[in-house]
Amino acid sequence: MARIAVVAGDGIGPEVVAEARKVVDAVLPGVEVTEYDLGAARYHRTGEVLPDSVLGELAGHDAILLGAVGDPTVPPGVLERGLLLKLRFAFDQYVNLRPSRLWPGVTSPLAAVKPGEVDLVVVREGTEGLYAGAGGSLHRGTPAEIATEESLNTRHGVERVIRDAFARAARRERRKVTLVHKTNVLTHAGSLWSRTFEAVAAEHPDIATEYQHVDAAAMFLVTQPQRYDVVVTDNLFGDILTDIAAAVTGGIGLAASGCINPDGAYPSMFEPVHGSAPDIAGRGVADPVAAVLSAALLLDQLGHADAAARITAAVSAELAARSPEAVVRTAEVGDRIAAQAAG
Amino acid sequence: MARIAVVAGDGIGPEVVAEARKVVDAVLPGVEVTEYDLGAARYHRTGEVLPDSVLGELAGHDAILLGAVGDPTVPPGVLERGLLLKLRFAFDQYVNLRPSRLWPGVTSPLAAVKPGEVDLVVVREGTEGLYAGAGGSLHRGTPAEIATEESLNTRHGVERVIRDAFARAARRERRKVTLVHKTNVLTHAGSLWSRTFEAVAAEHPDIATEYQHVDAAAMFLVTQPQRYDVVVTDNLFGDILTDIAAAVTGGIGLAASGCINPDGAYPSMFEPVHGSAPDIAGRGVADPVAAVLSAALLLDQLGHADAAARITAAVSAELAARSPEAVVRTAEVGDRIAAQAAG
Ligand SMILES: CC(C)[C@H](C(=O)O)[C@@H](O)C(=O)O
Ligand SMILES: CC(C)[C@H](C(=O)O)[C@@H](O)C(=O)O
Repeated sequence: MARIAVVAGDGIGPEVVAEARKVVDAVLPGVEVTEYDLGAARYHRTGEVLPDSVLGELAGHDAILLGAVGDPTVPPGVLERGLLLKLRFAFDQYVNLRPSRLWPGVTSPLAAVKPGEVDLVVVREGTEGLYAGAGGSLHRGTPAEIATEESLNTRHGVERVIRDAFARAARRERRKVTLVHKTNVLTHAGSLWSRTFEAVAAEHPDIATEYQHVDAAAMFLVTQPQRYDVVVTDNLFGDILTDIAAAVTGGIGLAASGCINPDGAYPSMFEPVHGSAPDIAGRGVADPVAAVLSAALLLDQLGHADAAARITAAVSAELAARSPEAVVRTAEVGDRIAAQAAG
Repeated sequence: MARIAVVAGDGIGPEVVAEARKVVDAVLPGVEVTEYDLGAARYHRTGEVLPDSVLGELAGHDAILLGAVGDPTVPPGVLERGLLLKLRFAFDQYVNLRPSRLWPGVTSPLAAVKPGEVDLVVVREGTEGLYAGAGGSLHRGTPAEIATEESLNTRHGVERVIRDAFARAARRERRKVTLVHKTNVLTHAGSLWSRTFEAVAAEHPDIATEYQHVDAAAMFLVTQPQRYDVVVTDNLFGDILTDIAAAVTGGIGLAASGCINPDGAYPSMFEPVHGSAPDIAGRGVADPVAAVLSAALLLDQLGHADAAARITAAVSAELAARSPEAVVRTAEVGDRIAAQAAG
């Protein structure tokens, strides 16, 4: 049976993760869970963000479920870089998977978009680009200061994530992949991405392809999100585009994500896109849907496609039945989804 | 009297520029215009994109009005880099100004946003960052290929554009500047931008400030564009955010922009954000509003604030009177705006 590490984290993290676990237990009893208390609390208590010993223990699990980390009392960047990004790089999670669906019952901020019409997935590269941490500065704090940030891209890294995107598209109905980059300005990386995309596309004559500049894609996600099926893009563009995609499908409160190492050499990590929301923590009103959907992605990745599909269907039913005015009660939402998913 | 260089360009460029000139003539008779035939046509005829001699002549003008350049027959990037970006860098146009207003009569794709509620301006840095052209590749076309793109940022470049943003905010009603960056990942450039922003903000205690990560800003432009007044950001983030801002305020068909050298050492350039739209070229149905508004920005920059305001008011009246089903007739729109602006 699957061995999962759970990092509940800070703020509403533990609240939503509790519901995700409830739902997992309902569809797949017997999953083994180890809890790890990483996040702001541990940082304040011990000064540690992610000790090597913990990293080693996490590596021994099949997957990681994370709630949310962060707190206004922790300097910005400490947990993001020391924990989230460190795990993505250490565990070679090169597919940052971010599905966006406009679920029945959910209202898009876009007047012309109806539930069921948007169903896209962004395959964001997770281990390269401007996230590599290459850069520096000179003459800091003086009028002569310069600062650089370098985007590093390899054929190895670009090809594997593009292959993953095509493989996902092949399993979907519309079978279409959109490459998003900025080839007219970022000519070196853009050329690498384009040529690699074309090479992989040539192996998939049955999959439709298109290319868009990132500025155009940002616009089309607002004016016509229905047009996308699978979008593959680099780390930073994916960061931006997935927040737009989440916004047009009802907000990051519903958005799930997975940082995936498809090779299985390291555990993949699944987490809601929302943060720790300290303002509403402890009141039992956080929406656990994003965490529950992240758990479904986790089960799917571990080969439990059936269990994942049952969770997804139960979430869909929950959202369809939800009235726009209703106050969310975290535990009640979890109970209902668990009951529905258990069948 | 002002001496303006006009680059009408390709596709609908000449059609919309003709109307912009009509409107300028109506509010400020006697502006001297020299036409330059840069763009796809010249490139095909002579192989030239921007000869040094033409660059020199352009430098002798007070400002440049550009329609649109580009055509499917020109390899992607040739005119963008050889003409548009070259002018931005050669003429040190460090303020890339992109106002977005939801005009009365215009419907936003966002259900909850009403005309008059969005009135923001993005001050995008125009001469640094990932647009510097620094980068390269090794082992091209082999499995060992790597490609880099480098973002170059200087205190000099960052400070001057931030100062410009604060100066603009000081002239506006809400007096608020939002810095957008990605400081939690791009730590070197992010730190330079943040520290510089704070230093300039300290000189403007009467101006409200906030910071947002680019992914959050992309989301808030969709869920709550009303919250922004002046947004200052780097070259690439500005490229993406302004297309979102255009999308939520009725599309790039209405969006004006200016590439400004505020010091006046070189001419500034003004252009509609839309492209050459070869699909509708020659039919007299292109909307000239973005070109007309770009001409208003041009006049404002040259010190003709009154003439600019009259054009803007006339555009507002035109859009308010437009019925959503009406077909745009380029010349008729220009005639009406010119008549109204002339008073
Ligand atoms: C927290 C931050 C480092 C992270 C990112 O930029 O990838 C976040 O925005 C995300 O999208 O998961
Ligand atoms: C054409 C392209 C180089 C340009 C840019 O990226 O700046 C365009 O997208 C813009 O926003 O003016």
